Amino acid sequence: MKKSIKAALIQQAKTADVALNRTRLAEAVRAVTKEHHPDLIVLQELHDSLYFCQTESADNFDLAIEIPSAVTDDYAALAREADAVLVTSLFERRAPGLYHNTAVVFDRDGSMAGKYRKMHIPDDPAYYEKYYFTPGDLGFHPIDTSIGRLGVMVCWDQWYPEGARVMAMSGAELLIYPTAIGWESTDTPEEKERQLNAWITIQRSHAVANGIPVISVNRTGFEPDPSGVTNGITFWGHSFVAGPQGEILAMAPAESEWIKVVEIDMERTETVRRWWPFLRDRRIDAYTPILRRYND
Amino acid sequence: MKKSIKAALIQQAKTADVALNRTRLAEAVRAVTKEHHPDLIVLQELHDSLYFCQTESADNFDLAIEIPSAVTDDYAALAREADAVLVTSLFERRAPGLYHNTAVVFDRDGSMAGKYRKMHIPDDPAYYEKYYFTPGDLGFHPIDTSIGRLGVMVCWDQWYPEGARVMAMSGAELLIYPTAIGWESTDTPEEKERQLNAWITIQRSHAVANGIPVISVNRTGFEPDPSGVTNGITFWGHSFVAGPQGEILAMAPAESEWIKVVEIDMERTETVRRWWPFLRDRRIDAYTPILRRYND
Repeated sequence: MKKSIKAALIQQAKTADVALNRTRLAEAVRAVTKEHHPDLIVLQELHDSLYFCQTESADNFDLAIEIPSAVTDDYAALAREADAVLVTSLFERRAPGLYHNTAVVFDRDGSMAGKYRKMHIPDDPAYYEKYYFTPGDLGFHPIDTSIGRLGVMVCWDQWYPEGARVMAMSGAELLIYPTAIGWESTDTPEEKERQLNAWITIQRSHAVANGIPVISVNRTGFEPDPSGVTNGITFWGHSFVAGPQGEILAMAPAESEWIKVVEIDMERTETVRRWWPFLRDRRIDAYTPILRRYND
Repeated sequence: MKKSIKAALIQQAKTADVALNRTRLAEAVRAVTKEHHPDLIVLQELHDSLYFCQTESADNFDLAIEIPSAVTDDYAALAREADAVLVTSLFERRAPGLYHNTAVVFDRDGSMAGKYRKMHIPDDPAYYEKYYFTPGDLGFHPIDTSIGRLGVMVCWDQWYPEGARVMAMSGAELLIYPTAIGWESTDTPEEKERQLNAWITIQRSHAVANGIPVISVNRTGFEPDPSGVTNGITFWGHSFVAGPQGEILAMAPAESEWIKVVEIDMERTETVRRWWPFLRDRRIDAYTPILRRYND
């Protein structure tokens, strides 16, 4: 593990042109690399396309890629060029009729350090992910890289303390959540505020409960609902980094693209876990109900 | 379950005079009852005494009481008089040499609705609780009352998402944490801020993760360290109520006593859990490592 890492977060708006999205991402990576030479670059969820899960359409399976494939080769080359660990979020075609929402991590030498398949899959109006993604079958295993052991999960996973805990108990030194979440336009301003704050709070709490930093990268911009059933999603941005006490180190605005490099002190976990030794006192003899669906 | 409950939080400073502390508590309960007639009254952790765990002294076991005993009879009578559910936090003497940190809940008719023995026991300089309290052996079971099913835990438990989850999965409609936590005076203002915010954040996150309200009642005031080893504890107050999206409904100041009645919409959980159906998607097939000490 490095004592300190420079993490770059890239929050972008997306278009229907996948090639253009990839080009703009590569440009952003090159720009931030040239200026800051980060150790880690984190992209948002499903960064190659619009958030296609607003409708259920079989045509959208055309967006999926195999892992590895020419697309992952390109990201591997980008990581190598940037000399940085790169966390990507891809629509994985595993077999005909079998797809996952998969984060792929490339190490700074361009090797594939590992992948994580989104474990918790949402399904709500305008977020029809259960149609597209089979729940992950790789479990909560951190990915070892040259800069440390990364607890990479994806979006909806961020609402589950269990995932964060298993990652931390498996040695994750940093939690990372590529995300795509936003507001429905008919929500009141008060409701929007509650939702955004809940999203920030739950992720900060994973830092607190486990004494490790958290990086969350969300998309921004408005994407209409192709079906016209809803009013579309205004992705709420607010990508952020929290330290191991949940303290906010940097946070993006809602409505604009944002590239930020944040220095994260990776030795702070040692101090914080000595002060607040939560792992010491866990009542593993009494947590069995967590493995049940409901305790009735 | 009532559709809406009026919850009273009583945040106080304590003295070495146990009788005086009990009298002041009873006066506070009577005053808030007369003015607001709350359905629920929540007291802070170990409200009958100073926070005696700042040192390890066998004499302090004199502060413990049996349950039931004349002391709990008095609290039962107070609950009946107030016609409210009363959440107390007591130093329980279970047998010679066997003590617990126990929350006792009295129903509005004065009956003992149930008790909870603090499951996670801290031990840090100035918080020598492992010397005094055997970890609870009653598990995480909500307590049924005339106003609903209450997930009562105590202080250090508040840092553990597991306890909150088990309570929620066992039907708790409200999480309640009597607390005694504060700052060491040599901490920097920035560190104090991080600690306080971490404490608020982790508890709000239990509301978010489980879609239920949270009540936390802390003590206030400065209590010197009788041993002179540390600079004593400035209890940080900030008792609060959060709604089921983690939104703050009321919050106390740090440095003064505070009695507050907060109206809590108990039907909001139904709405919030329909919007964010986290319980639906839990990966109970992948949480087994949570039952281990560490996943190495």
